[in-house]
Amino acid sequence: MSNISIITIGDELLIGQVVDTNSAWMAQELNKAGFRVTRRVAVGDVWEDIWKALDEECQRNDIVLLTGGLGPTADDITKPLLCEYFGGKLVVSQIALDNVTHIFEQILKRPMIERNRKQAEVPDNCKVIPNRRGTAPGMWFEKNGKVVVSMPGVPHEMKGMMETDVIPALQQQFPSQHIVHKTLLTAGIGESFLAEIIEAFEQALPDSIKLAYLPQYGMVRLRLTATGAQKDSVEQLVQEQFEQLQQLVQPYLVTDRDEPMQMVVSRLLKDHHKKIATAESCTGGYIAHLLTVNPGASECYEGGVVSYSYASKERLLGVVAALLQEKGAVCEEVVRAMLTGLLQSTGADYGIAVSGIMGPDGGTAEKPVGTVWIAVGSVTKIEAEKMQFRFDRQRNIELTATNALNLMRKFILRDLELPLQVG
Amino acid sequence: MSNISIITIGDELLIGQVVDTNSAWMAQELNKAGFRVTRRVAVGDVWEDIWKALDEECQRNDIVLLTGGLGPTADDITKPLLCEYFGGKLVVSQIALDNVTHIFEQILKRPMIERNRKQAEVPDNCKVIPNRRGTAPGMWFEKNGKVVVSMPGVPHEMKGMMETDVIPALQQQFPSQHIVHKTLLTAGIGESFLAEIIEAFEQALPDSIKLAYLPQYGMVRLRLTATGAQKDSVEQLVQEQFEQLQQLVQPYLVTDRDEPMQMVVSRLLKDHHKKIATAESCTGGYIAHLLTVNPGASECYEGGVVSYSYASKERLLGVVAALLQEKGAVCEEVVRAMLTGLLQSTGADYGIAVSGIMGPDGGTAEKPVGTVWIAVGSVTKIEAEKMQFRFDRQRNIELTATNALNLMRKFILRDLELPLQVG
Repeated sequence: MSNISIITIGDELLIGQVVDTNSAWMAQELNKAGFRVTRRVAVGDVWEDIWKALDEECQRNDIVLLTGGLGPTADDITKPLLCEYFGGKLVVSQIALDNVTHIFEQILKRPMIERNRKQAEVPDNCKVIPNRRGTAPGMWFEKNGKVVVSMPGVPHEMKGMMETDVIPALQQQFPSQHIVHKTLLTAGIGESFLAEIIEAFEQALPDSIKLAYLPQYGMVRLRLTATGAQKDSVEQLVQEQFEQLQQLVQPYLVTDRDEPMQMVVSRLLKDHHKKIATAESCTGGYIAHLLTVNPGASECYEGGVVSYSYASKERLLGVVAALLQEKGAVCEEVVRAMLTGLLQSTGADYGIAVSGIMGPDGGTAEKPVGTVWIAVGSVTKIEAEKMQFRFDRQRNIELTATNALNLMRKFILRDLELPLQVG
Repeated sequence: MSNISIITIGDELLIGQVVDTNSAWMAQELNKAGFRVTRRVAVGDVWEDIWKALDEECQRNDIVLLTGGLGPTADDITKPLLCEYFGGKLVVSQIALDNVTHIFEQILKRPMIERNRKQAEVPDNCKVIPNRRGTAPGMWFEKNGKVVVSMPGVPHEMKGMMETDVIPALQQQFPSQHIVHKTLLTAGIGESFLAEIIEAFEQALPDSIKLAYLPQYGMVRLRLTATGAQKDSVEQLVQEQFEQLQQLVQPYLVTDRDEPMQMVVSRLLKDHHKKIATAESCTGGYIAHLLTVNPGASECYEGGVVSYSYASKERLLGVVAALLQEKGAVCEEVVRAMLTGLLQSTGADYGIAVSGIMGPDGGTAEKPVGTVWIAVGSVTKIEAEKMQFRFDRQRNIELTATNALNLMRKFILRDLELPLQVG
């Protein structure tokens, strides 16, 4: 199997101004295509640092992919560096120039300036990878059996190049193995307790299969990874083990696919032609966002209310003012009233309502930061549960959303008289 | 100034199952504390790869920070590796054991199992860093003037250790310089056109100041970074340049702080004691989420509606059914009606309404994927604008949110008769 290094370039990565989402996406796609990423390195916009990283990674792996450092502005030094590293000289690429011209004339409808024209200059010993989504061309270099590909750091430009050109070309030129991942999601059990349950299973795993624990927001994903030359035998082997694993964690199993909680809920709803609505106080629209960020959301998501203030709980959901005054917004009665109002006004089959104190301020002795009430249900039945989280605001929002969706999932399964885990 | 390498450990980073947000956070905090991160390396759960990365980074920099590979389960090999690398042997740490015991007895209220007890074992030649938020202790090693610190990969556990112990200890032991960043945000101008405007400024910058362009979602951030031994002189020097830069980009300036668009809008609202509401179709709650994710949101965010379906636009916002039937949901009349309904039902001072086609499906010849209508306004005046984006769903959601917030910002400034840029 061919190993790959990814180098990301940019000071913004080293001062933490930007989170590197490019590498994760690239690693995922390369992995699916049968390649193994063994190292990811981030360096700043410093000539020596980029040069050294390139040199070292080229010694380590046959394929090195670079992103970043190709924009039209003067803080970019990657292109001249690559030109010198591979011993070429900068010339205008007609393909790249045509592309820049097209973008300015047809899409931006603005005159092109010299700085953009310069973007069409590339080392004369590279193959140009057309950028259909921006002005900076990609560059493919080869030397002593090594391939180095340089792409812009703008995510959608890099993605376009990877999908259309880079991955197919790598697959043609390098041997790739079959890598199969099988991931399941559990909720309601800690990592160490899971490990006790599957200890014997883990020890008996064949060498070609690896098990990993991925804890996140109170849930744990378990992943089996198998590698081999023969597609069928790899898949069969990992499937057998995966079924065993599912049996062992059955009481905690949420799904046997590698997907987040909201995808499980959305699929369940779509499969049974049901729609959901949301009434959010403390999560401020985040649950609605999770349910709508993926394609096809309109099949299962009806709509919702973000009732952040007391007034909006009254006006948008019909929660009685006296109740809010007497008990405050974070209590069982209020989330029940929010959900009742929501189901009435939207006509959705199912609904979620949440109210809580996310922090850092607003906690009291009786209701400390992290106190959350969640209600899930339908017009015929509502269930409410109190949860107590800790720590920071953002984490509390994530934990509230995940737990509310999990309660909703279990409610729907019982309501539709389905087995507790339906994949 | 002391340079730092960050090594993150875990197969999940190399198959792209997890985005590495830890490194960005660490880099940001270290930078604020006067350290420079020069390299970030991610490696898998492979003994040789971790060993080599550790060895190489130790040769490169005096400080190496590791995260990941310390959980209670068997895929973790970091601790024995560090033990061997630094020539120690594993012994039970009383501090760590007391912490694990406390977590099980006082917080989880469950019996502790052997696997968790083992987490209290550490190499006898490291200093234990207490983990107040989890069971895996941090470890501080020193050898030949180099410091290596190992922390768990769970973000809030790592953050707790960094803030309370690691950064203060590094500052005591190593010289740190003053690093000052000044960042401003522009909207409505491309990177290359900005570069034309500030070309002379950039060329005249003193050597101790670097300029970087950070384009994102149709906006560009410009960052000046200055480094020096004397705090006051560094700050004065960069401030002078920063004021020049602001003058040059004045027509496109959104804010002279390093903050996202939603923070600018929230601050503007808070400063003038106004509240905002949101009516979202295509963004599905994302704008509400942006406005509520940071502390203090209740001062400026009233509430909102996620009117995803036709029915919810009618029922929650009073949009007339005949209008939706005749014109569809993505048109000027509908976003105006959504906003009128929203302002009436919430009583908020200002409001945003959006409706569009985010893709990948649902586009037509007349209204292709990426078509979005945005309305912003108050009870006395509503303005609507059509935008045309391209590409993928997630990017369209981000672009819609950012542009809607920018239109709202400009509306509020005009409405309050403020200068177009107020910092």
